[in-house]
Amino acid sequence: MNTIYILFLFTFLSTTSYASVNDLCVADFKGPSTPSGYHCMPLANLTSDDFVFHGLVAGNTTNSFNAALTSAFVTDFPALNGLGVSAARLDIAKGGSIPMHTHPGATELLMMVKGKITAGFMTPTALYSKTVKPGDIMVFPQGMLHFQVNSGVGTANAFLAFSSENPGAQLLDLLLFANGLDSDIVAKTTFLDLAQVKKLKARFNGKN
Amino acid sequence: MNTIYILFLFTFLSTTSYASVNDLCVADFKGPSTPSGYHCMPLANLTSDDFVFHGLVAGNTTNSFNAALTSAFVTDFPALNGLGVSAARLDIAKGGSIPMHTHPGATELLMMVKGKITAGFMTPTALYSKTVKPGDIMVFPQGMLHFQVNSGVGTANAFLAFSSENPGAQLLDLLLFANGLDSDIVAKTTFLDLAQVKKLKARFNGKN
Amino acid sequence: MNTIYILFLFTFLSTTSYASVNDLCVADFKGPSTPSGYHCMPLANLTSDDFVFHGLVAGNTTNSFNAALTSAFVTDFPALNGLGVSAARLDIAKGGSIPMHTHPGATELLMMVKGKITAGFMTPTALYSKTVKPGDIMVFPQGMLHFQVNSGVGTANAFLAFSSENPGAQLLDLLLFANGLDSDIVAKTTFLDLAQVKKLKARFNGKN
Amino acid sequence: MNTIYILFLFTFLSTTSYASVNDLCVADFKGPSTPSGYHCMPLANLTSDDFVFHGLVAGNTTNSFNAALTSAFVTDFPALNGLGVSAARLDIAKGGSIPMHTHPGATELLMMVKGKITAGFMTPTALYSKTVKPGDIMVFPQGMLHFQVNSGVGTANAFLAFSSENPGAQLLDLLLFANGLDSDIVAKTTFLDLAQVKKLKARFNGKN
Amino acid sequence: MNTIYILFLFTFLSTTSYASVNDLCVADFKGPSTPSGYHCMPLANLTSDDFVFHGLVAGNTTNSFNAALTSAFVTDFPALNGLGVSAARLDIAKGGSIPMHTHPGATELLMMVKGKITAGFMTPTALYSKTVKPGDIMVFPQGMLHFQVNSGVGTANAFLAFSSENPGAQLLDLLLFANGLDSDIVAKTTFLDLAQVKKLKARFNGKN
Amino acid sequence: MNTIYILFLFTFLSTTSYASVNDLCVADFKGPSTPSGYHCMPLANLTSDDFVFHGLVAGNTTNSFNAALTSAFVTDFPALNGLGVSAARLDIAKGGSIPMHTHPGATELLMMVKGKITAGFMTPTALYSKTVKPGDIMVFPQGMLHFQVNSGVGTANAFLAFSSENPGAQLLDLLLFANGLDSDIVAKTTFLDLAQVKKLKARFNGKN
Repeated sequence: MNTIYILFLFTFLSTTSYASVNDLCVADFKGPSTPSGYHCMPLANLTSDDFVFHGLVAGNTTNSFNAALTSAFVTDFPALNGLGVSAARLDIAKGGSIPMHTHPGATELLMMVKGKITAGFMTPTALYSKTVKPGDIMVFPQGMLHFQVNSGVGTANAFLAFSSENPGAQLLDLLLFANGLDSDIVAKTTFLDLAQVKKLKARFNGKN
Repeated sequence: MNTIYILFLFTFLSTTSYASVNDLCVADFKGPSTPSGYHCMPLANLTSDDFVFHGLVAGNTTNSFNAALTSAFVTDFPALNGLGVSAARLDIAKGGSIPMHTHPGATELLMMVKGKITAGFMTPTALYSKTVKPGDIMVFPQGMLHFQVNSGVGTANAFLAFSSENPGAQLLDLLLFANGLDSDIVAKTTFLDLAQVKKLKARFNGKN
Repeated sequence: MNTIYILFLFTFLSTTSYASVNDLCVADFKGPSTPSGYHCMPLANLTSDDFVFHGLVAGNTTNSFNAALTSAFVTDFPALNGLGVSAARLDIAKGGSIPMHTHPGATELLMMVKGKITAGFMTPTALYSKTVKPGDIMVFPQGMLHFQVNSGVGTANAFLAFSSENPGAQLLDLLLFANGLDSDIVAKTTFLDLAQVKKLKARFNGKN
Repeated sequence: MNTIYILFLFTFLSTTSYASVNDLCVADFKGPSTPSGYHCMPLANLTSDDFVFHGLVAGNTTNSFNAALTSAFVTDFPALNGLGVSAARLDIAKGGSIPMHTHPGATELLMMVKGKITAGFMTPTALYSKTVKPGDIMVFPQGMLHFQVNSGVGTANAFLAFSSENPGAQLLDLLLFANGLDSDIVAKTTFLDLAQVKKLKARFNGKN
Repeated sequence: MNTIYILFLFTFLSTTSYASVNDLCVADFKGPSTPSGYHCMPLANLTSDDFVFHGLVAGNTTNSFNAALTSAFVTDFPALNGLGVSAARLDIAKGGSIPMHTHPGATELLMMVKGKITAGFMTPTALYSKTVKPGDIMVFPQGMLHFQVNSGVGTANAFLAFSSENPGAQLLDLLLFANGLDSDIVAKTTFLDLAQVKKLKARFNGKN
Repeated sequence: MNTIYILFLFTFLSTTSYASVNDLCVADFKGPSTPSGYHCMPLANLTSDDFVFHGLVAGNTTNSFNAALTSAFVTDFPALNGLGVSAARLDIAKGGSIPMHTHPGATELLMMVKGKITAGFMTPTALYSKTVKPGDIMVFPQGMLHFQVNSGVGTANAFLAFSSENPGAQLLDLLLFANGLDSDIVAKTTFLDLAQVKKLKARFNGKN
């Protein structure tokens, strides 16, 4: 009973979430979104099934990253609408990695389940990086560029939590190399060599 | 690469978090708290170790609940200060349960790792209850009274995420029976029989 | 019991609303709600009458609580949409009380008008309770379980203010005993005797 | 005029506070304030008395407004720190009024207790004004210029609630005529006649 | 490179904005507004043109203020929906001024481009006023009554930024003199002479 | 008078800013920061000078970017503490550019003053890019990776506004190449060639 009991001793807890003015505002994707989220389903339509998501399972890691991120964001799990939190499952095969990316404004918690991951985030003046294993949580504060690499001898997997119901993922290579931004501009504003830019544009289906 | 790729397609992501005006505001417990959280440690003092928490391990379930909640709240993991998210690990032995409780204003996500849990939350007019197993997430919207019971044949365990760095846990029995609130008032305002109130006051060390 | 009961029917309550980006966003109940509240009525339709509510009058206390809560929440007074504040009037006949309940995420102020009320709220480690009379305000911080008992020799009445336009009221007995949650689970997760659970289930029209 | 006047001395008021990450964060006025409010008192120091305010009594209306506003803002009632709500009592003698003022960012609810008040608020394109009596609530949305006049045959009194723990009161005459802003600039930027400006500067102790 | 470099040294930056849960939520004015802003346009409809506003040009100052405020608020520039920031351009001819006004809850930054402006804001107990010139920024904190007067020998112009996508402008003379509020009430609640009130009512097309 | 008058017609304005519960909370850098910002200076110490910043002048562009960003963030201009807005001046010499960067969670408005700038931001699935000139505003929504290039024949300059008092600037090259993150990990998580990584590490003083 110890850990529970100790929990109650520091208790006075609470929250910043300014989420929903309706306790139950399950997203109705038929209408448009708003700055605070989707329209609410009528309460009378809700059942217990609306509050459970079944897909937090291992993703297919047979891809060029050798990794998979299986998300339970509001678009996957409409009950999260307005609630300011979401989750995902991360699977990284041996040798795989989740490339550099940001979640604009959302903090990420990585809770290790299996294996070994070397992860980190950077600020303009510092690197914060660690190798984590089951029992560890690593936090990537809001908006920071970060990465995760499987540094163990087998598959690694983790559960993720986010301080937003819709954290998305701004994958750096897609931002730089998967669209029509002129290669010269990419080179000029990243200091990468033009040849490097063109090589990655080819890889990520970018143009110009 | 499928799940990752799909993720990037709906992307437009983002956040509700109105967290910190400082990206890195690791709590300094030497000073007092404020309505928005603790004072920030000087940036120069921070190291990679500040952003990793090591204690998300199985709690001791040899107690009267046959259950343990091991928390990674801001008071355990100071890097969460101002970031609007926290985590915990739930272990429930066979036959055990987490009794009725609320997190004032924080939403809880329960991500099943092992076993089978029957959980639910109630509003004055409805019950939302399900039995969940690995691969499932159940959401308990902000401030709702809820419970979790091991309904499987062995130990169950889950990871929890909260939309607050300090969700606490207002355990109903402690609120009603562990303090000095007069038994007559408890009975009158809960409709419980006085004898029942006195019996539970004895169990939870309450007075009067 | 009517006014209290009706209150519990629309319940789904709430939390720390953030102010509107429109100064005047009177709720239009024809459309759905969103996490930040209801759609705004066209400004051209608004008149002075939209900003006045006429029903803050004594409720009927001839019910099993000997008490009445008359609400001026957004659903009663649409001008409150997006404004983060609401009100109510509390009438408690001699011997009556408002049973244990929470407002998820909303703080309550009780401003005494007449009579004497003994009220309090509890945390897992403390009880904060006082007897208040005209001239006094008592505060029940966000999400705390609380109660109010008429401890005077006549009728008591008070005005309430809430830090949300939709605070609702999660009445404990309705949550535990008015729905279909299995009596065994209620007993197990509250430590109440099964007979007590069944007795109150009968009283509050619960099943199973 | 005392209670109103004192109110204006601590003024610096404000706006849509976001709830506390601590359930109980009673203000400690020994330290400085922060954008989210004051430092929290240690929990161990709190008693039931901290959550009750005793001064919501009739103010002295023997002043030039024939009115008194008795406030229960965070500076009067430290338990409101971080909770986003506060209260006040309004007494207006026959013929008296509360002059034009704003609460920057806080919405005001006026709950009539006795008498008759004619009140209103203005936007650049509309006037919303009504005469209210006991049983009525009038809402003055965030930041709107508004006034209250006793339009009955005797004393009027009301309870006020605000969507901020520190709503202050920016009384128009004090802003325009009680400081050293050059009379020519006041005249030029209000279109008032210079003689009128100088007359009111004299009345409200302004200079230049 | 100095200023850029120094910027990166204090970096750890970030934000209060609790803007949109969608990164891109360009306003769709076909539907109603909500407390958090307008409905979002479908992402597929967005083009680069949606993110550029072309009208931040000199306004026509041939009017009774000898001044013009050209706004880029959400209603002018729909991409600002949910983003918590907007802009405007201020042109004041020689001898002109922007009369006393408030932006309920929005802070204003005035960035001088040309000429000389004397500006200020008032609290009930203080005046904060300065003459500013190119290279200067003056801040008018949220909800404060403020003014701007051209105090130079030629035209003055400035760019404005606001901490809201919809700051509006509550111009004092319009609030007091452009509607049907009874002149006696205006006089009584402002302490202006009745003749002065009637004179300005005539000027601003007010009635009664 | 047209533009001003039209402004007042759509008026009903307002704000999302949940800034400070104190209207005037000028930062006191002697104490630590908190998640909501710095401690407030005592009101009695404030003067008009606190609300004016004098350094919004042309920066020195003789550097490797041929560009300068001169900031007026809270750390430069303490009056912005808690107010949710800040500003900067951008100077880009002919041929210069502001390299790829993000402001975690802050939206940026670029208001052109002189010259011609080609700017853009990217999402994983789209590029939004335009060439802007005086009279134009471009918006870079919260957290998006973006760039600005002088595409004119002379110097370009612009004023910037941000939806945060502390937007910072996470410059991509500094994040990737200016710290001790192992070159192999950088290459693996960016898909850049190792030689390219090492070349830029050398340029930006990174190690390993």
